[in-house]
Amino acid sequence: MSMVRDEIAKMAGYAPGEQPQAGKFIKLNTNENPYPPSAKVAAAISACLERGLMRYPDPFSTPFRQRAAEVLGVEPDWILCGNGSDDILTIVTRAMVGHGECLRLPRPSYVLYKTLAAIQGARTEEIQFEDDWSLPSAFGAAKDDGTLRVVFLPNPNSPSGTVLSADAILKLAERLPCPLLVDEAYADFADSNCVSLVAKNPKIMVSRTLSKSYGLAGLRFGFLIAQPQVIEQLNKVKDSYNCDALSIAGATAAIDDQAWLTSNVDKVRSTRAVLETGLAQLGFSVTPSQANFVWAKHPTASAESLYLKLKQERVLVRYMNYGNWGDGLRISVGDDQQNQVCLTLLESFLSS
Amino acid sequence: MSMVRDEIAKMAGYAPGEQPQAGKFIKLNTNENPYPPSAKVAAAISACLERGLMRYPDPFSTPFRQRAAEVLGVEPDWILCGNGSDDILTIVTRAMVGHGECLRLPRPSYVLYKTLAAIQGARTEEIQFEDDWSLPSAFGAAKDDGTLRVVFLPNPNSPSGTVLSADAILKLAERLPCPLLVDEAYADFADSNCVSLVAKNPKIMVSRTLSKSYGLAGLRFGFLIAQPQVIEQLNKVKDSYNCDALSIAGATAAIDDQAWLTSNVDKVRSTRAVLETGLAQLGFSVTPSQANFVWAKHPTASAESLYLKLKQERVLVRYMNYGNWGDGLRISVGDDQQNQVCLTLLESFLSS
Repeated sequence: MSMVRDEIAKMAGYAPGEQPQAGKFIKLNTNENPYPPSAKVAAAISACLERGLMRYPDPFSTPFRQRAAEVLGVEPDWILCGNGSDDILTIVTRAMVGHGECLRLPRPSYVLYKTLAAIQGARTEEIQFEDDWSLPSAFGAAKDDGTLRVVFLPNPNSPSGTVLSADAILKLAERLPCPLLVDEAYADFADSNCVSLVAKNPKIMVSRTLSKSYGLAGLRFGFLIAQPQVIEQLNKVKDSYNCDALSIAGATAAIDDQAWLTSNVDKVRSTRAVLETGLAQLGFSVTPSQANFVWAKHPTASAESLYLKLKQERVLVRYMNYGNWGDGLRISVGDDQQNQVCLTLLESFLSS
Repeated sequence: MSMVRDEIAKMAGYAPGEQPQAGKFIKLNTNENPYPPSAKVAAAISACLERGLMRYPDPFSTPFRQRAAEVLGVEPDWILCGNGSDDILTIVTRAMVGHGECLRLPRPSYVLYKTLAAIQGARTEEIQFEDDWSLPSAFGAAKDDGTLRVVFLPNPNSPSGTVLSADAILKLAERLPCPLLVDEAYADFADSNCVSLVAKNPKIMVSRTLSKSYGLAGLRFGFLIAQPQVIEQLNKVKDSYNCDALSIAGATAAIDDQAWLTSNVDKVRSTRAVLETGLAQLGFSVTPSQANFVWAKHPTASAESLYLKLKQERVLVRYMNYGNWGDGLRISVGDDQQNQVCLTLLESFLSS
C-alpha cells in the first residue's frame, strides 16, 4: 500500500537553498538581506510577547493589512497575508489549478512553481525567455486545450534579476485567458512595480515577501494584492490561522517603517553595482540586475566548480543548472565586506 | 471568467471560532489554555530575536524535533513540524487524497477535515458515533469503490471530549485499507494517547499541537509523529520554511519544560471536574471529558439561545450545530474565575 498519492510518490520535492544552522558561512545563496531589520520590528515582537501567546492570532492579520494598505495605496480587503510568500503561492496554486490543468511559467525562473503544480497533479508549461530577457508572444497566448488556469511571472525574475515593464505586463494580462500572478519578491530593489495594475485588471495579482527587502526571512511573512472578490475566494483555501501573533506584530512594524526600507534598499542597490562591476572585471558576463542578487556566467570557468570552491572556503552562492538552457551562479548582494571576500576568492580561483 | 476552481467557488469555507481582537471577553470558545505558557518560551523567543531574523529558519525545525523525540521516545526523523497542527492536517490531506477520492471522519467531529477534503476536490464520508461514543464497525471497513485514502480521527474527539482506547485504535488501523491520522490535539489532557502505536503500524500517524496544552495558540506550532518513510513523503508537500525562527525556538523551549506541562494539565483537569459538576447541577447533560472543554446539552433550554445570551454578557462559548445529529454547547475549561462567571450566568438564564 502506498501511503501517498502517486504524484507525490513520484516527485523529487523542492530543494531549497542550503541553510547551514551551524558554523560560520558567508551566505550569498538565498537572497537574504545582509542587514538586520528595523529596530521597530524587535520592539513590536517583544511587546506582543509581553501580551502573551495563549490566544489564537487574528485570522486575517488585520493590523498588517491596514498599515500595508495605506503604504501601497489600496484598501485592506485587497490584501491577503501568508506565512511567507511561499504560503501565498501555495494558496493561489491550490485555489486555481486542478488535476490535469496547467500552470505556465517562464524559463528559467523560480523552480518552486513547478513543485506546487506537481503537488496538485497539474502540468506546467515553461516558455523560454528571449535572449534579451523579454518574453515571446506565446507567453500570453491561450492554450488550444483550454487547460491554462494561471500564469506565474517573477518580476524581477530569478535568477536573471531582470524586469518586464508594467506596461508589458498589463498587455500580457489583457491577452491571457486566465489570472496572472506577478511574483514581486524582489520588487523593492527595482525601479518599478505592478501594484497599480491590480486595480486596472482583476486578473492581475501581485505577491510580496518581507524576507528580502525587509530583512525578515526568519519571520515568514508575505502577502498578496488582488481585487477583493479574488481575496475572498483565496481566503477559503488558506489555513485559518496562517500567520502567528509575533509575525503579524513584527511585519506590521516593518511595513510601517518605510524610511528604514528606503535606506536599506539604497545600500543594497549601491553595493549591487559594486558587485556587478567586480564580477565583470573578472570576465563574468553579468545580467544587469534589478534585484538583490546578480546572475553571472563565465565564458571559460565551470560555474559548478566555482560554486564548490567557494563553498570549501565557506562562502555559499547558488549554483543554478537549468539543463539544456545552461547554468550559472546566482550571487546574493551581501554587505561590502562579504562581496569583497567573494570577489577576491573568485579572482584567486580564476587566476590559478 | 472564474478566477478559481469550481470546487473553491462553490465552497463556503471553514469558519473558525470567533477571535475578537478588541474588547474584553471571557473566551471559552476555541479551547485555548487559560494560563500563560512556560516562562522559558518567552526567554527562548527573546534570545532568538537577539540573534536576528535576516536568515531563513531551519527548514526542518531540527532543534524541536530533537527535543520532542527525546520526550516522546521516538527518533527525530519520525517527526514533521508544522505551522500549527492545521498545517499538518493540510499537508497530510494534500499528500494523500486526490480529486474524487475519499477522506473518512466520524460525526460529529472537527469540521475542518471536510473543508480540507473539499479544497482537494475530494469527497468525505462521515460515520456517526454510537450513543456511547464508540465507533461502529463500518468506520474500519474498506469502501466498495476503492477510493478511501485516509481516515481522520480526533482522539480525544471534539466536541465530545471522549476517547477511544489505544487498543481499539490499533485494531481499527489493522482493518483499514488506508492510513489513519489520529488527531491528538487534546491528548495531553487525557489519560492515554497513541504515540506508541506509530511503531506498531506504519499506517498510524499521530498529530499534536502546542496551541492547547502548552498555551501557545498564538505561536502556531504543531507536529506529526509517523514512520520515517511517511515523513519523507510528506516533506515534499510542506512549504520549505513552514515554521519561523521564533516559533521553532519557542516550541523547543515549551516541549523541553515537561514539568510546566504536568502542572498545567493538572490544573486544567481539576478545573474541568468543577465545570462538569457545575453544569450537571444546572441540569445539563455533560459528556465526561478527557480534553480541555466539555460538551453540554440541556434537556429544555435552547443551546443557541444560551450561547447568544452568554455572548451578550461578553462570555464566548462555542455553539455547535450538526444538523439532524443535534446541537449543544462546547465550553472550554477556563480558569476557576472564568468558569464561575460562565456558570453563574447560565444559572441566571435558566432560572429566569
